[in-house]
Amino acid sequence: MLNETKSLIYLDNAASTPIHKEVLKEMLQNIELDYGNPSSIHELGRKSKTLIQIARKRISKLINSDIDEIIFTSGGTESDNLAVLGMARKIRNINPRMNHIITSSIEHDAILECCKDLENDNFEVTYLPVTNDGYIRPKDMISSIKPSTGLITIMFANNEVGTIQPIEELVKIAKNKNRTLIFHTDAVQALGKIDIDVKRLNIDLMSLSSHKINGPKGIGALYVKKGIRPNSIIHGGGQEYSIRSGTENVIGIIGFGKACEIISKSFVYNNKKILEMKEYLIKKILDEIPNCRLNGGVNVDKVLTNIANFTFYGVNGEDLIIKLDDYGVAVSTGSACSVNKQKQSHVLKAMGFTHEEITGSLRLTVGVQNNMDEIENTIEILKKVILELREISPYNTKYH
Amino acid sequence: MLNETKSLIYLDNAASTPIHKEVLKEMLQNIELDYGNPSSIHELGRKSKTLIQIARKRISKLINSDIDEIIFTSGGTESDNLAVLGMARKIRNINPRMNHIITSSIEHDAILECCKDLENDNFEVTYLPVTNDGYIRPKDMISSIKPSTGLITIMFANNEVGTIQPIEELVKIAKNKNRTLIFHTDAVQALGKIDIDVKRLNIDLMSLSSHKINGPKGIGALYVKKGIRPNSIIHGGGQEYSIRSGTENVIGIIGFGKACEIISKSFVYNNKKILEMKEYLIKKILDEIPNCRLNGGVNVDKVLTNIANFTFYGVNGEDLIIKLDDYGVAVSTGSACSVNKQKQSHVLKAMGFTHEEITGSLRLTVGVQNNMDEIENTIEILKKVILELREISPYNTKYH
Repeated sequence: MLNETKSLIYLDNAASTPIHKEVLKEMLQNIELDYGNPSSIHELGRKSKTLIQIARKRISKLINSDIDEIIFTSGGTESDNLAVLGMARKIRNINPRMNHIITSSIEHDAILECCKDLENDNFEVTYLPVTNDGYIRPKDMISSIKPSTGLITIMFANNEVGTIQPIEELVKIAKNKNRTLIFHTDAVQALGKIDIDVKRLNIDLMSLSSHKINGPKGIGALYVKKGIRPNSIIHGGGQEYSIRSGTENVIGIIGFGKACEIISKSFVYNNKKILEMKEYLIKKILDEIPNCRLNGGVNVDKVLTNIANFTFYGVNGEDLIIKLDDYGVAVSTGSACSVNKQKQSHVLKAMGFTHEEITGSLRLTVGVQNNMDEIENTIEILKKVILELREISPYNTKYH
Repeated sequence: MLNETKSLIYLDNAASTPIHKEVLKEMLQNIELDYGNPSSIHELGRKSKTLIQIARKRISKLINSDIDEIIFTSGGTESDNLAVLGMARKIRNINPRMNHIITSSIEHDAILECCKDLENDNFEVTYLPVTNDGYIRPKDMISSIKPSTGLITIMFANNEVGTIQPIEELVKIAKNKNRTLIFHTDAVQALGKIDIDVKRLNIDLMSLSSHKINGPKGIGALYVKKGIRPNSIIHGGGQEYSIRSGTENVIGIIGFGKACEIISKSFVYNNKKILEMKEYLIKKILDEIPNCRLNGGVNVDKVLTNIANFTFYGVNGEDLIIKLDDYGVAVSTGSACSVNKQKQSHVLKAMGFTHEEITGSLRLTVGVQNNMDEIENTIEILKKVILELREISPYNTKYH
């Protein structure tokens, strides 16, 4: 049944998630007394510092790191910048010949723009291609490694199509070829969806974000393996083990820590629930909407539980978003961040999609707060809206 | 009367301030619905974007800038980094000979560490000396300007001793000598204490922080004059007019905006109240505690209303903080940030203080939430504690 009133169905959880009520509770419990500067040595300052350490412990537990391997940042983007810019420059400082970086062509803009910045600074960057399904081929990575390669940065899972890269295998074969290589992964989308154990993965640097796992915005972290030390990108008072300066966002850190603690406990339940909703959504859409396809991998173990990316032929994805929004369904075409640049998805382009296939793409991303009624409603609304849009499609008439 | 129970008297307001209840209220009103990514084009995303624009307007109003001259960052430290690193590199990119920067020897570590970073990158930096009172001499600045000088960065007011630099005069004479010079000021301590009008000052870049004016931690801004564009230091999705990427800290931004709106209305009242308390505190301490001095300027118009820095001879400032903390009085020796580095104040050193004078220094900083009873109590506790400490002073016996 169509829900014609504008009650919101939020299926844009890969862009951002609502704050979990337990996270909010813990933030609010501390916010009124949050006026100690964690660097002050009086009791209020020490209390803030303690709260930070509790959060650090919770995050480290979720990814099986040591506590002091967690560096707080202002979010996933800053973490990516610290890892890529800070590490590439550190490596070249030590050995000027080490100026080659390997990444993929489907990374988030936070990685790609850093690589561009490094290219302007005389670094050489290799952008690995991907399969039509959105996967990196390990052999492509291996054959790109040169004596000058100092850093490899490959995302754990893609934010637009949800494909999970074989990070454990990639780290292993990369370090087999050159054991001094530093391996970074952007795990912003993967955290909470994939069981991540940094020790088992043998990863060196990993970017994390709070607001993708029902924590607050404006806070993230970089996992930095003991013994490794990227150059700082924000200098000052020497907070965060002198890697990242600036008065700590104590309340944000508390929220991020709590969100990680909750995920630690509800990981299996959450992902089962999210996946069931997503699988149902995919099946119904493919069954009931003609001329559409699922983008990215089809092997359920190799795609994030929450992301489904479709192409609806003969439709403009942006029109679709606006129409769906009128019906109270919030979704996006791909990366929220790309909107600022008004460019077509570089991810789908790298996967070999045509202009029309990219134009007709839509990303639906499920969250733990969603329910089956919302999914049912979304399918009905989507069917109706696509029918309407295809009737007025400027492209052609073959999909009517 | 001594208050022996541990009810807190917080006189460390230059380190951080409690969140204003109206700020908190506005943050809480929005936090539960804060799950739209401002870059998403659906209604929830657009709502977040609107909230950001309201905050931007409030901040711009406080400093008389245009709305789109406010770039949100994660705090004062990041703002300083964006201004100094981003601008110095941008200037040298355009003209490789422009590689000279002028700053002062009493800047915050966020500025000084950026300058150090630039020196490692073949920039030349001049650190201007200051008077014994903590003021820059305009003639020193003028005589340092060279054809290669691209950027001058001088703090508006000092965080340890509160001295207000003659920014309007400095900008005027600097631009008279070379009108293409870019002038940045770190106004983190000045905001809310000094009536700042960026248009009148003719300043190019200015760093601001939320948690020093009863807003939340983890959010700040850089004022960037129209036509000027520092290189980004955090790259990615192109948020904040493509100057600072990363999903926006919407709730932090809302809080910062509200804090600025409140200050706009209560500026005169707040500063009168704070100054009265501070003047009383200074008078009583100088009258009733032997062998102590006020550090920094004595002209009330040239010192921030909230900062009082003393030296108590024959006492170790850190012992004093710990003792005062036992009595429920929270203060610090100087910059909270310096604690991480366990170094002596570079500000007092630049002002020509002896080791003993620096060791005996203490910073008391008043906030609008303080009251006269707290000030009275603090004076009594301070008298008692200093007497106790001087009795066991390892330095000498002359101050007993």
